[in-house]
Amino acid sequence: MRQAGRHLPEYHKVRGTTNMLDACLTPELACELTLQPVRRYGVDAAVFYSDIMIPLKIAGLDITIQKGKGPVFPAPTSTTNDVNTIISHIDNDYSPITQAVRDACSELGSTPLLAFAGAPFTLASYIIEGGPSKDHLKARAFMKNDPHNWDRLMTWCAERSIDFLGAQIDAGASALQLFDSWAGSLNKDDYKRYVQPYSQKILQAFLHVPRIHFAVGASHLLEELAISATAVGIDWRMPLSTAAKKLPHTALQGNLDPASLFLPQDLLAKEVDNILHEGSHAYAHIFNLGHGMPPTASPDNVKFVVDRVHESKIR
Amino acid sequence: MRQAGRHLPEYHKVRGTTNMLDACLTPELACELTLQPVRRYGVDAAVFYSDIMIPLKIAGLDITIQKGKGPVFPAPTSTTNDVNTIISHIDNDYSPITQAVRDACSELGSTPLLAFAGAPFTLASYIIEGGPSKDHLKARAFMKNDPHNWDRLMTWCAERSIDFLGAQIDAGASALQLFDSWAGSLNKDDYKRYVQPYSQKILQAFLHVPRIHFAVGASHLLEELAISATAVGIDWRMPLSTAAKKLPHTALQGNLDPASLFLPQDLLAKEVDNILHEGSHAYAHIFNLGHGMPPTASPDNVKFVVDRVHESKIR
Repeated sequence: MRQAGRHLPEYHKVRGTTNMLDACLTPELACELTLQPVRRYGVDAAVFYSDIMIPLKIAGLDITIQKGKGPVFPAPTSTTNDVNTIISHIDNDYSPITQAVRDACSELGSTPLLAFAGAPFTLASYIIEGGPSKDHLKARAFMKNDPHNWDRLMTWCAERSIDFLGAQIDAGASALQLFDSWAGSLNKDDYKRYVQPYSQKILQAFLHVPRIHFAVGASHLLEELAISATAVGIDWRMPLSTAAKKLPHTALQGNLDPASLFLPQDLLAKEVDNILHEGSHAYAHIFNLGHGMPPTASPDNVKFVVDRVHESKIR
Repeated sequence: MRQAGRHLPEYHKVRGTTNMLDACLTPELACELTLQPVRRYGVDAAVFYSDIMIPLKIAGLDITIQKGKGPVFPAPTSTTNDVNTIISHIDNDYSPITQAVRDACSELGSTPLLAFAGAPFTLASYIIEGGPSKDHLKARAFMKNDPHNWDRLMTWCAERSIDFLGAQIDAGASALQLFDSWAGSLNKDDYKRYVQPYSQKILQAFLHVPRIHFAVGASHLLEELAISATAVGIDWRMPLSTAAKKLPHTALQGNLDPASLFLPQDLLAKEVDNILHEGSHAYAHIFNLGHGMPPTASPDNVKFVVDRVHESKIR
């Protein structure tokens, strides 16, 4: 999960009124925002501060982040011509990313940095819908209705993610996380047929570094997500011991319910201890939240969680 | 699933500018909107046109439906005082519902009418958050942080749903559907401890009629949803044959992907046939969508689906 962000007062101070994509493409800002959670919390790894839209922005697509809504494109994508236009974009200047990662790694010393990218289905969903969607109906209809253009679009998205991850890893990141935020909206057959081949292309391009694969609400796709992955992120809904039975040879990442961060610390401690205990059933366990950091989370409670994990006897 | 609604031109014509909750509480409108899909499509049962917020509105809570957002309360609910205020509301005039259901049943003749209500967790989530929420963090924190007030609020919500369903069934509805839109956001332990007892109270109050229980993204809770239910609604993500293995003695409702309604009819036919085939593995099968009707669905395609199901040889 992204660690930096709106819950940190120092994040607001540094980002100010710079819009998010610009912040991601300004090396000093991206570097600084990456380091903030490491300084404050002493976490075991940094997560590169970026956004899944960055490779599309770098490719030259016209994306804006609308407050309270998310990434928005000028129009949805539905026809062959639309797809032609999208995939004709291939600008490729990753120097702001390279610079930010290099600077962050140099500051981090022995603390590893995780590279970060969105998976093709999530990227293609945004492009097809023209922005965020509650139900991804257009994307699910598109894949069946026009498999040829779906393939062209997904191939292009996979290449963008490979470029983005490659830039981060070449500049010093030690591992990667591939985020498929919306994959949980697919049934297993559709996922295997229309999505998995493209995500696999990405994971298999980076067999030389550890690879974490994550999708929300995707407990029905765990076995598929695990292929070519070193670790699978589990959301807060499924106990890690249950996931471990399905994936006995895969490391698991997760899965403290972000809602727990709003409990008093005595109750929060119980929730953390339960995750540590559950994680002890996994092949290996990377402690994490089971979904994104809430912007209203208290940094004191996040610090409490990190310290509790570090002090845990189970560890 | 609700059948009536924005995808039907006759719906817009009849509802006009009347806001949704007012339409639900105007017997002639609620009756007419209930009948429209039966007239157009010849479906095997009508679903009472209403909204899960209606029993809260009837109890006297100040709710407005904001366009593009959903039900909104004047303020969130977090303290004991807030809960006291909520549960002090017990107005109970169900006569507009009774009238609408009676009139609809009289028009429907031998076509059965399904009663409709929201489950306590979904209602309590709206009340606690003060409106719709993407992540239900406040509701999940509330249940653990303040189990006493959680119990008081959930008990009140369950009583409201019982009143609402009771009014519909007493007036002639033949079966009921209990909707827990957000229950899928809970893990199994939390669902069993903080939610199931209250939903069970409702289902067990109506053992004399068939009871359909539905939650979205809840494939990890199927066994729990099936208790005291005659049928469980399955969303589009899980094949009915898989659900049937988990619930061999429960009827299944579902689960055509609403995205399929945007396919050309030759592809749509394949999707329908697949659901019919999958449903043949269930103890009994009620054909339905696997989620709500998209407002942009074409009535021609919905009609095509209904006809295809009726003509199916498998049936």
